[in-house]
Order: sequence, then C-alpha cells, then structure tokens
Amino acid sequence: MTEIRIHEVGPRDGLQMEKQIVPVETKEAWVRAAMAAGVDIVQVGSFVHPEKVPQMADTDELFRRLVAGKESQTVLSGLVLNEKGLERGLACGVEMFCMGASASETHSRKNTGMGTDEATRRIVAMGKEALAAGKRVQVSVQSAFGCGFEGRIPIERVQRIVETYLEAGLANISLADTAGHADPALVSGLFGVVRALAENVECTCHFHNTYGLGMANTFAALQAGVTTVETSWAGLGGCPFTKMAAGNVATEDFVHALHRQGDRPDVDLLRLIALARDVAAHFGREMPGYVYRCGPIPNGPASVAGPFVDQSRREDVR
Amino acid sequence: MTEIRIHEVGPRDGLQMEKQIVPVETKEAWVRAAMAAGVDIVQVGSFVHPEKVPQMADTDELFRRLVAGKESQTVLSGLVLNEKGLERGLACGVEMFCMGASASETHSRKNTGMGTDEATRRIVAMGKEALAAGKRVQVSVQSAFGCGFEGRIPIERVQRIVETYLEAGLANISLADTAGHADPALVSGLFGVVRALAENVECTCHFHNTYGLGMANTFAALQAGVTTVETSWAGLGGCPFTKMAAGNVATEDFVHALHRQGDRPDVDLLRLIALARDVAAHFGREMPGYVYRCGPIPNGPASVAGPFVDQSRREDVR
Repeated sequence: MTEIRIHEVGPRDGLQMEKQIVPVETKEAWVRAAMAAGVDIVQVGSFVHPEKVPQMADTDELFRRLVAGKESQTVLSGLVLNEKGLERGLACGVEMFCMGASASETHSRKNTGMGTDEATRRIVAMGKEALAAGKRVQVSVQSAFGCGFEGRIPIERVQRIVETYLEAGLANISLADTAGHADPALVSGLFGVVRALAENVECTCHFHNTYGLGMANTFAALQAGVTTVETSWAGLGGCPFTKMAAGNVATEDFVHALHRQGDRPDVDLLRLIALARDVAAHFGREMPGYVYRCGPIPNGPASVAGPFVDQSRREDVR
Repeated sequence: MTEIRIHEVGPRDGLQMEKQIVPVETKEAWVRAAMAAGVDIVQVGSFVHPEKVPQMADTDELFRRLVAGKESQTVLSGLVLNEKGLERGLACGVEMFCMGASASETHSRKNTGMGTDEATRRIVAMGKEALAAGKRVQVSVQSAFGCGFEGRIPIERVQRIVETYLEAGLANISLADTAGHADPALVSGLFGVVRALAENVECTCHFHNTYGLGMANTFAALQAGVTTVETSWAGLGGCPFTKMAAGNVATEDFVHALHRQGDRPDVDLLRLIALARDVAAHFGREMPGYVYRCGPIPNGPASVAGPFVDQSRREDVR
C-alpha cells in the first residue's frame, strides 16, 4: 500500500516571502528537525539570483551542509528556474529537482519572459538533463487551477503541458494552485484528467489557503489519487505583509489529520509541532497553522472509520 | 435536484461566546442582512436563562421583531435546551426548533445534569411537542465526533441516539462536532451510518475549525449526503479569549466555495462578505474567515468540473 508522502516546502515557499532573512544555521536546524520527524521530502531552497531573492542566497551552502554525511532517508529537493540554477543544484548535492512552467500565458511571461510553450520546452530539457544525471525530478504546472491575471485556466492547457512532460519521460507531476483559486470539484476533475493520461503518472498537489480551501482541496486531491502533498511548517507562505492568514496548508495540521485517520503514524507529530512553534517564535507573530497553537487532540486515538482515501486507486510508486 | 442549504448560526453560536453583548438592533440588522442574502435558515438565538448566557437574553425580543410582517423565505430557527425554552420559543414565533443531546455521557452530565439516555428522552418529548405545534424540528447529536472529556465516541452511541429520534418521527438530524475532533474519514463513516438508518433522514453538519479541518469535513459531509451545513458569519464561534483562530466554518467562505463549483448562485455572496465585515468591524478584531478579508476570486467563473457532491445520493427534502 502506498503511503501518502509529505513534501515540506517551508524552507523555500515559506521563507522566500519573508522580509527577514533567516540565518543559514537556523534554516539547517529547521530542515534537520523536519528530517528527524520523518518527513519524506524537504524542499531546502531555490536556486535563483541572490539579488532577486536574497532569502534564498544561501541555498547552495545549505545543501552542502545537509548532504555531508547524510544518513536520513528524507529526500532533499531544490527548486530550479533555469539552466544556471540546475548547474548550481547539480554542484551542491540536490537529490530531487523541482521545476515547472505556468499554464497561464500571462503569468508565464511575467515570471520568465517566455510564453507557456517555450517555458515548457525549456523545463523538459532541464528535466531530462537532471534525470540523466541520476537525479529525481518533479515537474510542475503552476497556476494550474486559475490565475490572478487570467482567471480560469482551461483544463486543456494544463493537460497539454502534462502530456509534454510525460512524452519526455517526466512522470512525477505536481499541479500547483499558485493563486489559491482551486476548489474541491476542480481539484478532483483536473487530477482525474492528469491521472488518466498515463499509467505511471505520480501526482503531487500544492495548495494555498487564500480562500480557506487549502485543506479541503488537499483531501479532494488524495481522493483523486494524489500521493504526495506539499505543505509548509506552521502554514508559512504567501505574502507576510498583509493581514491575510493565507499561506500553505500547514505540515503539522495535515499530519495531525492523517494520524486521526490512522495514516502515517511513523511521522513524529510532536516534533513537527515543536518545529512550527520554533518558526513562529523566530518570526514573533502568529502563523496560519492551527495545531501548533492548540496541540493535538487529547485522548485522541485514530478514527475508527479507516482512511478517507480510496485505496484502490493508489499504487506503490515509491 | 436538492440544493445544499445553509443554516447561519452566527447569531447564536457566534455571539454566545463573545464577552461583549451585541445590542438587539445590531443583531436584527445582521440577521436581516443574512436573510436578504438568501441564506436558507438563520439561527436567531437560544432560549437559555438570561443570567447564564446574558448574550442571548434578547432572543424572544429579536424573534418578535423578525417575525412581525415577515415576507422572507428564510426560516428562523432557535435553539432550546429545555421545556421552558420551548415554551418561550412557541410564544415568540420560532419557526424551526433546534435541540439536542450529547453522545458523550460526561459532556451530557456536565451540560444538563442528565446522562445521554435521559437527555435523549427529554429531547424526543420536546421535539414531538414542537412538531405537534406545527413547527419544523431539527434534533442534534452533540459531541458526535469526539469529546474533550472522553476522547473518541463510539459510533454505536451516536447511532442509538439517532435511532431514538427516528422512531419518534424526528428525521431532521444534525451531527455536531462540538470539540472540533472530526476528520474527513470519520465524517464520511458516521454520516454514512446515519443515512443508512432511514430513507427519509435529512442530515445537517456542524463543524468547528479547532484543528484546521472545518472546511475539509464540510466537503466530506456533502459527499456523504449531508444537505444542510451550519456555518457562521466571518467564522465567528468558539472561545474568543484565546489566540486560536478556531471558530466555525465561515458562511461566506463556504458560499464562495459553492459558487466556484456552480452551486447556489442565488445566494448573494457580496452581501454576505459585507455582513462579515460589519461583524468584524463591530468587534474590532480579525475574524477566522478568509474571504471577507480578501474578497472573492477576481475574474472567477464557476469551476468547469461541476459540483463535487455526488448528486445521485441527494434527494429533494425541502
């Protein structure tokens, strides 16, 4: 039976939006805590120009520290945006490369200066190079569920990008709800389309909680056969300069929910809660997560009703 | 096709926990705004001893104001805890009586001085009296998904209470997650059990967001055939004296999600957002809801994937 896997993106998606730059020692301690808790994959950082995103300037150094003498089973991933980033990542020990193109033409041009088709071709070339180097690769579709510029994104646009990935042998697919526009029906429909494209497709989801639907979308994704969920410690992510408690789905909230349903008892929830509290204390403000504030349900055995996910549709892809 | 119905419980579950007593004129304006937005049912207040819950002391007066010359299709409900409350409610024009027993023996004794069996018998007698008076009646099981005192509640305990209700002809059943312990698997399992008990059972859900699962549980409930959802304006509810942004599922967040899926386009979301903003401004603090802060998704047509709910399992029970 496939377990639901957790991809912690706090060090990248959480920290890149913070005004305050977190020292590399602190980042290292947080990532090591997530690894010790048994999180499956941790996204250590992104390889972007240090002047563009100074919060990520130490990503290479952080990888070198973490891979030196590494014994943990946790996979360390890095986000790369271009060939230069891929080169940096190959040099410092990235184990899994994450990269993607936006399904929104406007978002793609604003972010990369390229339209969706050109950006997709570039990602395919980079992905093949990383695979050839013996690395794991996850390719994503950004703005898959809607775009602040364009509104609804036709499913066919997402499907075309995924087909291009699959034809290139890139079968580890993440659909990212960059703007937080997803709803459970759309999640269900879109992952259904993607999973039907190939037998060997592995699906990952990434949701923002802008409109309060992050966790509901996550459960809809699991029902649709998604096996890896990207979450962030304490729910950190999204813009910290608004009063909006939006951000990502909190890792410890999700693991708490899984434990209630009898899933992933091997992941150390109390350690994740302590980590989320460290992150909240570091920034000195309340974070979007819930469980780190109140602790887990007391006297709480697992749900008696068994896992919510339709097990028959999952397959062992590890 | 049955629509998903919305039962606004902000005036009762939201306001009863607030230190600040809201003037009757303000409550009246807020309830009228919810009615004007097209909410199906509004829980105007509860009939408890005014010394015990002074926030609800004006419930009779509020009903009298609202039912005088009422033209709206919105049903006005009131929560009653005992025979005295039922008498008061019958005298001031309550249209739908809500009442319930706790599945947790400890919670039941602490709240009512009676065990679950005795409390259930009393609710059945009161429910029959309200039905005989030509009123709508909703009977609930409190702590149906777990209890802070007892932890997990065996499904059989919930089932026994519901069977007692059904034998008495009380088929409008609400399962309330009083402590916020529900998870999607348990929601699915428990509502499945309840819906299998009788052909004519109508199910309502009531979730608190203590552990971040309110919305996910709501969608699991809809999938399990629940047709009425209890929500609260701006997500108000739960203890206002902690930093926990817990509370109920926010009415405007839920309606926003339904609109994304093409459901309930007749409910006026912008009016609900304005109402939630009025409530937040009145209390002068940030509320747990999301959409009232950021507004609805721009350029946002409904999801193309159709409603998430399995329509085949729903029936017209209005």
